[in-house]
Amino acid sequence: MTVRQLPLPELVAHCARLGVPGVGLWREPVRAYGTGAAAALVRDAGLTVTSLCRGGFFTADDWEADNRAAVDEAAALGTDTLVLVSGGLPEGGRDLPGARARVADAIGALVPYAAERGVRLAIEPLHPMFAADRCVVSTLDQALGIAERFPAAHVGVVVDTYHLWWDDRAPAAVARAGAAGRIHAFQLADWTTPLPAGVLNGRGQLGTGAIDLTGWAALLERAGYTGPVEVELFNEALWARDGAEVLEETVRAFEEV
Amino acid sequence: MTVRQLPLPELVAHCARLGVPGVGLWREPVRAYGTGAAAALVRDAGLTVTSLCRGGFFTADDWEADNRAAVDEAAALGTDTLVLVSGGLPEGGRDLPGARARVADAIGALVPYAAERGVRLAIEPLHPMFAADRCVVSTLDQALGIAERFPAAHVGVVVDTYHLWWDDRAPAAVARAGAAGRIHAFQLADWTTPLPAGVLNGRGQLGTGAIDLTGWAALLERAGYTGPVEVELFNEALWARDGAEVLEETVRAFEEV
Repeated sequence: MTVRQLPLPELVAHCARLGVPGVGLWREPVRAYGTGAAAALVRDAGLTVTSLCRGGFFTADDWEADNRAAVDEAAALGTDTLVLVSGGLPEGGRDLPGARARVADAIGALVPYAAERGVRLAIEPLHPMFAADRCVVSTLDQALGIAERFPAAHVGVVVDTYHLWWDDRAPAAVARAGAAGRIHAFQLADWTTPLPAGVLNGRGQLGTGAIDLTGWAALLERAGYTGPVEVELFNEALWARDGAEVLEETVRAFEEV
Repeated sequence: MTVRQLPLPELVAHCARLGVPGVGLWREPVRAYGTGAAAALVRDAGLTVTSLCRGGFFTADDWEADNRAAVDEAAALGTDTLVLVSGGLPEGGRDLPGARARVADAIGALVPYAAERGVRLAIEPLHPMFAADRCVVSTLDQALGIAERFPAAHVGVVVDTYHLWWDDRAPAAVARAGAAGRIHAFQLADWTTPLPAGVLNGRGQLGTGAIDLTGWAALLERAGYTGPVEVELFNEALWARDGAEVLEETVRAFEEV
């Protein structure tokens, strides 16, 4: 998504050229390209698919069918990790505790299907500014509280610096998640202000914002995390530029932080 | 601030006419009108000043002089409550725990001056989306953690639904703050999406958004809070309208929720 302007074949070719060993993919471009073809494309370039984004949005009418499809797509891509973004309040709703309880129930209903297919569900807490319209799971403690009802091999969490950097309780939750083997993905983005309207597409290039990303990497290392580190920038200004150039810049920024 | 388009005399006259028994004031219009004159204006209309906004911004060079001035202004207005918004990270800074520690130290330095003048310092946690640029105190637990270092008569917290509604730990913190007599202000605003650019001026009219405001009022009542309930809407669309009309609408919305 950081370089969503790049068609999949170019994305994969540039990653291979730059020594990026894996890519996290989103469902829309994968489905447009063909899931089997996308899997072959990445595999033939010697890369891995680090995760698939996203399942979740459990308030949608067709959530169960859609999430099973997402599990199938993750399995077909050869990734073991499906990221779940829970969705917000139902239209006109104000019952936040109720919405959170329904998310936990929906994840529980999805676990057996995913486990049978070797796909781990990774619950992603989103920044509290998305609690109404995108994700009622707002903290790592909440995500972990849901994940802990299930075996760690099947359900874990996503640690994304953009969403968690402000939370003084997050470091302890990272340690707890790491000790239990529940950190299923680690994603980097920086926090830059002012936020744009709608607040979705203002994630900053690594090193340009307020987050101590090096400190976060050290925190994950201390927690025993040895998996991939993904960079996920939703940023209109980056999307408007040449994708290969943005990818090269991102690789340099990643190495610097 | 909900009707900042109204000059102070009109604000006071309309509040008196509508049966609003008190007003929370901001420093800028008070200073422009003259602090003594503003105090007399409110008093002569039979209203009280519920709080003064705001001290804080402890990363500014002149924070100590400015905060002492704010205490003096609160005392002159006859309100016992000065709201503190801590300020964000220093320019280019990334040390969020360090910034939070410095805020606690600065508040500690201000307490004796305020206590001598009969002014309570009310620490306001702002939504985590303001952590970088406006307020490093992001949760009620954090605000209360600072307040609890000092006597409740001198330092407490502000409970503002807009900033806290997403936090599943807030209800327990409200109960704890209430039991200790540390809820020094209670403010209402609703959460509406999409957020505007900069995210400052998108607070929704009561009843139009995602927050269970009636539930929050019940929570504060259970916590033993009997003080004023303020409505604080930062909203460009409301500011662009006739102030008296917005005030009337707000009174109706307040009664409905």
